[in-house]
Amino acid sequence: MANQGKYITKKSENLSDWYNDVIIAAKLAEHGPVRGTMIIRPYGYAIWEAIQKNLDTRIKDLGAENAYFPMFIPYSFLEREKDHVEGFSPELAVVTHAGGEKLPEPLVVRPTSETIIYDAFSRWIQSYRDLPLTVNQWSNVVRWEKRPYLFLRTTEFLWQEGHSAHKSNEESQELVEQALKMYVETYQDDLALFGYAGRKSESEKFAGAVATYSYEMLMPDGKALQGCTSHNLGQNFSKVFNVKYQTEKGQEDLVWQNSWGFTTRSIGGLIMAHGDDNGLILPPGVAPIQVKIIPIVTKNSDNKEIEALAQKAFAVLEGRDIRVRIDNSDASPGWKFNQADLEGVSLRVEIGATEAKEGKVRVVRRDNKESFLLNPQELGDQVDEILAKMQSDLLERSKKFTLENTREARTYPDFKEIMNTTKGFIKAFWCEDPHCEEMIKEETKASTRCLPLGSEPSEGVCIYCQKPAKFQWLFAQSY
Amino acid sequence: MANQGKYITKKSENLSDWYNDVIIAAKLAEHGPVRGTMIIRPYGYAIWEAIQKNLDTRIKDLGAENAYFPMFIPYSFLEREKDHVEGFSPELAVVTHAGGEKLPEPLVVRPTSETIIYDAFSRWIQSYRDLPLTVNQWSNVVRWEKRPYLFLRTTEFLWQEGHSAHKSNEESQELVEQALKMYVETYQDDLALFGYAGRKSESEKFAGAVATYSYEMLMPDGKALQGCTSHNLGQNFSKVFNVKYQTEKGQEDLVWQNSWGFTTRSIGGLIMAHGDDNGLILPPGVAPIQVKIIPIVTKNSDNKEIEALAQKAFAVLEGRDIRVRIDNSDASPGWKFNQADLEGVSLRVEIGATEAKEGKVRVVRRDNKESFLLNPQELGDQVDEILAKMQSDLLERSKKFTLENTREARTYPDFKEIMNTTKGFIKAFWCEDPHCEEMIKEETKASTRCLPLGSEPSEGVCIYCQKPAKFQWLFAQSY
Repeated sequence: MANQGKYITKKSENLSDWYNDVIIAAKLAEHGPVRGTMIIRPYGYAIWEAIQKNLDTRIKDLGAENAYFPMFIPYSFLEREKDHVEGFSPELAVVTHAGGEKLPEPLVVRPTSETIIYDAFSRWIQSYRDLPLTVNQWSNVVRWEKRPYLFLRTTEFLWQEGHSAHKSNEESQELVEQALKMYVETYQDDLALFGYAGRKSESEKFAGAVATYSYEMLMPDGKALQGCTSHNLGQNFSKVFNVKYQTEKGQEDLVWQNSWGFTTRSIGGLIMAHGDDNGLILPPGVAPIQVKIIPIVTKNSDNKEIEALAQKAFAVLEGRDIRVRIDNSDASPGWKFNQADLEGVSLRVEIGATEAKEGKVRVVRRDNKESFLLNPQELGDQVDEILAKMQSDLLERSKKFTLENTREARTYPDFKEIMNTTKGFIKAFWCEDPHCEEMIKEETKASTRCLPLGSEPSEGVCIYCQKPAKFQWLFAQSY
Repeated sequence: MANQGKYITKKSENLSDWYNDVIIAAKLAEHGPVRGTMIIRPYGYAIWEAIQKNLDTRIKDLGAENAYFPMFIPYSFLEREKDHVEGFSPELAVVTHAGGEKLPEPLVVRPTSETIIYDAFSRWIQSYRDLPLTVNQWSNVVRWEKRPYLFLRTTEFLWQEGHSAHKSNEESQELVEQALKMYVETYQDDLALFGYAGRKSESEKFAGAVATYSYEMLMPDGKALQGCTSHNLGQNFSKVFNVKYQTEKGQEDLVWQNSWGFTTRSIGGLIMAHGDDNGLILPPGVAPIQVKIIPIVTKNSDNKEIEALAQKAFAVLEGRDIRVRIDNSDASPGWKFNQADLEGVSLRVEIGATEAKEGKVRVVRRDNKESFLLNPQELGDQVDEILAKMQSDLLERSKKFTLENTREARTYPDFKEIMNTTKGFIKAFWCEDPHCEEMIKEETKASTRCLPLGSEPSEGVCIYCQKPAKFQWLFAQSY
């Protein structure tokens, strides 16, 4: 009850203050004692568990098996892939002492596990019969953050990283796309977050990849959030880690590889996109509490009927595997309503004297306050339906917002005008010269987010240099 | 197929070589590139996932919620509890550099999370209404190992750690015992490993605890393995981390705390206790593959009937949520049998020409080779029964071995004689003076393992100093 009466900045007034306030007040997370680290509190972790449950099933459906690799990586491993070590060096945490002694070689705390996993692959893979080999790891990783932000940028975060080895680039690329599709499903079906799936530019791709794909979502302030990545690594790592196999014809060949990851950062996007002035709004797919029953009991009335209805509703919903709680605390009904709103509980069930008189319960949606007076015996089917409708409405709202804030810019002054005012996504022709990309970023803070999948080539001119450009890329300022 | 024909040391000849061989050959795990670290391969990790599934449910039944705390702990946090820092100092890994800079304060990679969690508790707990507070974390931890051993002693290992805060010592002690009971259930019901639950001596308890409880199992070489710990922390940590609450009467009071953990070390005990010369024996409760169907097809015969029976058996077992695989590789039946034995698959289902002729399948237990000729349509119920029987038989075997190797020693020469020959557990009176305990350890390598729960006091004399002693403690050499 420590939050009772706690002031939360209005989302409509200051997104960033609201975001921090709601995370603290709803007890999702808080800063750890070491700068940049985060404590994920039980309520926040329950969201991660809900995400993991479905995502782990999807990962296994891809043919991956879970495994666990050490988090300490010899520094020399990272150095083997030139781009990889250059990309990650500034973000590394280094163990220099252990067991009371200075170590002969400093150890890196994994920022990602390509190097240590592919060193193992070089032993595990002998023949074409061992391919494809796909493993996944749920773990913590560390990338030192200069500007930490709860969930969105933390020095240590939780994630899954999938790693695969194949006989051909085509087969590897297929898994790169399947993994991306799996993340799109997770975002759209579970987190109710619309976005664009596409390929990153050369300068924005993963350090060590041939190509990186991502899912880019729009936050309420018009800035983009990258929600996951899926990398085609070509033979970059198999070359340096010597991951070879004997082909059907008895020849030796390097494998083709890919890797793909999804992190606790997703929870940051979830919070920021859906919430409102009153607190979180959690889509039923990942809400730790999908339904909260609030009996409105008073000192002066007979509450037996209300309590009986509450118990009945609870039993019905629990029997349907709905994540339901009953709030029997001694707080006032008004405080309980506010608390359920703050926590983003998908539906609340109110039962007061009026409802009890009719033998009914009132179900209220968190997102649009739509309310339903229902018979407790029909509650199961109807709540399932209302939850499903809320889930799809939230995705629809996210889609509508994103499409309304995806604009085409034909001229650079238009581009700058948009970035100075509404922000959001801009579709604009770009010649794919990194210099233009860099200048646009310097002048407008907007970077290329991705080339959306399915983009059709046409004959345009680069928004910056006016030279020929084939594709409209997606630009935005970003988290 | 890289293990085909791989030589495995006989368990009966050299336990330690067998243990390492079987872990490598069955692809459970291997050494990581950094000394003391371990790669848990998919087959080994699947055992951990099976353990986690039931244990996580039991943990939540205790009233705990999962959360995640940062793995980097300021060194100053550890220093606050004197015994704690003294106990863990020699095992710490220390991050001194990060983000390209030397850190102002070195960071410890968590060896356990009491300090960082109780610092958070001091903020989360305000009033008696916030108690009890019970959180659990699934994570990696690091304790530098001078003598690493796969699964049993690794520098980084996986575990769960539960942490709780209470209004009274009685309530806290109750959870200490419930947690211990939960681990006993996990070991006995899932891992089929008998052992003794009891209290550790003062010198063997956790650094910072008032009392530590553990589950002690006996390995085939007569050495004991500690399987888990549950600690009563009293107010040792609440004092130094200032974890206070306001009582019902409006006074300020320190909370009473406990913590309890279970690690991937358990898999080491599982491997070592159950396996035989042919490889692993995995109890159905945690076997990643409970049943492997092996169609015995030959080039010269019509295999259609065999293959149809195999598919039918597979469908029946999969429909019962049994973890079943079918081995359709082109290896020989003999190789497939050996491979299933090596992997410790609980049951294999053989279907050859003889069985096909009768329209039946042959089910063979991994542990005792007992075989059953069954109709495929009755397979579901019967396999469930056979698996349950195998599970209880394995526990019974473990119990029998442990009881047969638990001896009473009345004199110190007897004690030494046992430790020089059969080893195993010894029950012996001990006066509880740490000096006697130390001398016994020096002279026989046997340490106190625990005072078994329910031990009755009586009037004995210390096996070492002959002074009065109340209880028979359990002694053993240990891993």
